[in-house]
Amino acid sequence: MSDEKKNASAKSPSELELLARLKTKLPVDDSVIVGAGDDCAVIDAGIPGKWQLHKTDAVVEGIHFTRDTDPKKVGRKAIARALSDIAAMAGTPRWATISLGLPDSFTGELVDMIYEGITSFAKLKDVAIVGGETVSTPERLVISVTVIGEVERDKCVLRSGAKSGDGIWVTGEMGGSISGHHLDFLPRLEEARWLAANFLPTAMIDLSDGLAGDLGHLLDEANAGAELLEAALPIRRDARILARESNAAKPPLIAALTDGEDYELCFTLSPGNAVKMLDEFRQAFPETLISCIGKVINEPGLKIKQKDGIKEFAARGFVHFQ
Amino acid sequence: MSDEKKNASAKSPSELELLARLKTKLPVDDSVIVGAGDDCAVIDAGIPGKWQLHKTDAVVEGIHFTRDTDPKKVGRKAIARALSDIAAMAGTPRWATISLGLPDSFTGELVDMIYEGITSFAKLKDVAIVGGETVSTPERLVISVTVIGEVERDKCVLRSGAKSGDGIWVTGEMGGSISGHHLDFLPRLEEARWLAANFLPTAMIDLSDGLAGDLGHLLDEANAGAELLEAALPIRRDARILARESNAAKPPLIAALTDGEDYELCFTLSPGNAVKMLDEFRQAFPETLISCIGKVINEPGLKIKQKDGIKEFAARGFVHFQ
Repeated sequence: MSDEKKNASAKSPSELELLARLKTKLPVDDSVIVGAGDDCAVIDAGIPGKWQLHKTDAVVEGIHFTRDTDPKKVGRKAIARALSDIAAMAGTPRWATISLGLPDSFTGELVDMIYEGITSFAKLKDVAIVGGETVSTPERLVISVTVIGEVERDKCVLRSGAKSGDGIWVTGEMGGSISGHHLDFLPRLEEARWLAANFLPTAMIDLSDGLAGDLGHLLDEANAGAELLEAALPIRRDARILARESNAAKPPLIAALTDGEDYELCFTLSPGNAVKMLDEFRQAFPETLISCIGKVINEPGLKIKQKDGIKEFAARGFVHFQ
Repeated sequence: MSDEKKNASAKSPSELELLARLKTKLPVDDSVIVGAGDDCAVIDAGIPGKWQLHKTDAVVEGIHFTRDTDPKKVGRKAIARALSDIAAMAGTPRWATISLGLPDSFTGELVDMIYEGITSFAKLKDVAIVGGETVSTPERLVISVTVIGEVERDKCVLRSGAKSGDGIWVTGEMGGSISGHHLDFLPRLEEARWLAANFLPTAMIDLSDGLAGDLGHLLDEANAGAELLEAALPIRRDARILARESNAAKPPLIAALTDGEDYELCFTLSPGNAVKMLDEFRQAFPETLISCIGKVINEPGLKIKQKDGIKEFAARGFVHFQ
C-alpha cells in the first residue's frame, strides 16, 4: 500500500463508460426528478415547494488523503466534498450520515479527531449528523458521507440548461489543489444560493474532476462547446509553483484544466446578466473571487484562446494547435 | 488479507463505547426527532404527516462476504441490510444511493453483477436508486448504501418504549446465518408495517448483531430486563448443523443468541394484544414464522428459562447458572 496521495480526480475512460452504462439501468420512479448523473439527485419527497437533494461521496486513504494527513482535515474534507455537490444545485444541506471504515491500526483518538473534523464543519454549515456507522476496512481508512439537502423547486440549478452565447463563470481558482486547497476549501453554498435566488444560472456544476472535464459535462448536456480565454483563467498560485519546481509537473494551464479537487462553482449565465451579476456578487461576497472565463459556443469541443491563437483541448488532455 | 468471512456482527465493547461517546457529540437540530442510535434516524423533513428515515450501512469483503461470494448476492445483501433497518421502524424505503469501493482486481463484469444484485432487489421493494459513486479501495470491495425511507408519524416504532410485562416477539429464526441466510434474507418490511398499522408494537429492532445484544438495546432503553424461554426460541436448523459438525462451533442456543445477521424483527407487544395479533399475523403472512420468546421484566439482565432452571446470560456471552 502506498501512502502517496494519488490523483483523486481523474476517472479513466472505461470507468466513465461503465458508470454511464450503469446509470441507464437504475430503477427510478415519478418521485425522481433527476437521478444519478447530476451533482446530486433531485427528489420530490412530498415537501411543499421544495425538492430534496441526495448525495453520497467517499474518500479513501492513499487516494484522497494520506496516512499522515491531519485526521481533522480528513473528516472536514469528507463532508465538505458532499456539501460542494449540494452547492452545485444551489441547495441547502440539512442532514448527513457517516459510514466510517476503520483500518486495523485505528485508535479511539483517530476516530475522535476525524469526527471532530466532520462535526465542527457540519456545525458551521448547520448540518445535523444523524447517523454514524463504523465498519472494519483493515488496510486503510474509508469515509463515506451521505448528505440530504433541499432547494426551492424554482431555484434548483442542474448541469443541463447552458445555451450558446452564455458566459462561463467560475468562483475561486483552479489547479494545484494537491498543495493544500483540497483540505481547506470552502464549499460555495452561500454563493450558489445567492446566484440562484438573484440571477438563476442556466447550468451549474462543482469542479471536482477538473475544469475541462466538469465543464465538459455542462457542454455535453447542452450539445455545445466552449471557448475559454487563457488570460481569464484564475490559475491557483500553487499550480504555478508546482510547475516551477519540477519539470515533471503539469504546465499551469493544464493543471488548471485537469487537476481537479478545486471544489469551486462553474456556471453559465445569460450574457445580459453578466455586468449586473458581477457587480452585485462582488458586493455580496467580497472575499470570493469570481471570473468570467469564456462563453458557450455551438460547435462542440473545448477551445482555449491564447496569445498565439486558438488551441483545441481534447478529452484526453492534449492540446492541439489549430 | 484473509478471504474468510469473519464474524460480521459482533462489535467489541471498546467499539460500542466509542460509538456511544461519539453519538453524544453529534450536531442535531429541531428537525431531528431521533438521531444516531436507533435503527434509523427519524427526521422531520417537512413532509405533511410523515417522518423521513435515514440509514447508512456498509459491507466489506472479507467481513460481510468473501471474494468467492456471488457478486449478485453481495449487492443484494448490501441493500437488503439497510432495508431491514427501515423495516425496524415500520417504514417504507424510497430512495437509495450507492458508494462502491472497487478493489484493483475489479472488472466491468463484477460491477455489473453487483449492481444487478442491488437493482433487482431495489425494484422488488420499489426503491429508486438515485446515485451511484465509485471509488478505488485497492485491497477489497466495499459497498456503502444509504437508504431514505418514510413512515406515518403515528406509526413509527422506536427502540425505546418496551414495558415490563410486554411479550417479546421475533419473526423468523436465529443463529447459523453464516451458512447462507445472511445472503438470502428478506427484510421484514411488509410485516413491520402491518404490525405498526394494526397492533403498534411498543418497541422494535432488527436483529443484526445477535438476539442477546439487539434485545439488550430495547431493554436498556426501557431500563428493564427479559426472561426468555429456551423452548420457544426459533433456532435455525443451520445453527444445529454447525454445532453437530464441529466441536468448535457454538451450541445452538448460544448461536441463536449471539450469531447475528438474522435480519429479523424483534419487537415487544402489550400482552393483551398477543392472541389477536398472532392469529391475524398468521393469516396475513402465512409464510413468515412468528414466535413469542419471552417477556419483559423489571429486573435488568437477560434470563433464559431452561428445563433445568433459569440461567443468566451476561453481556459478554457467558451463561451463568443461577
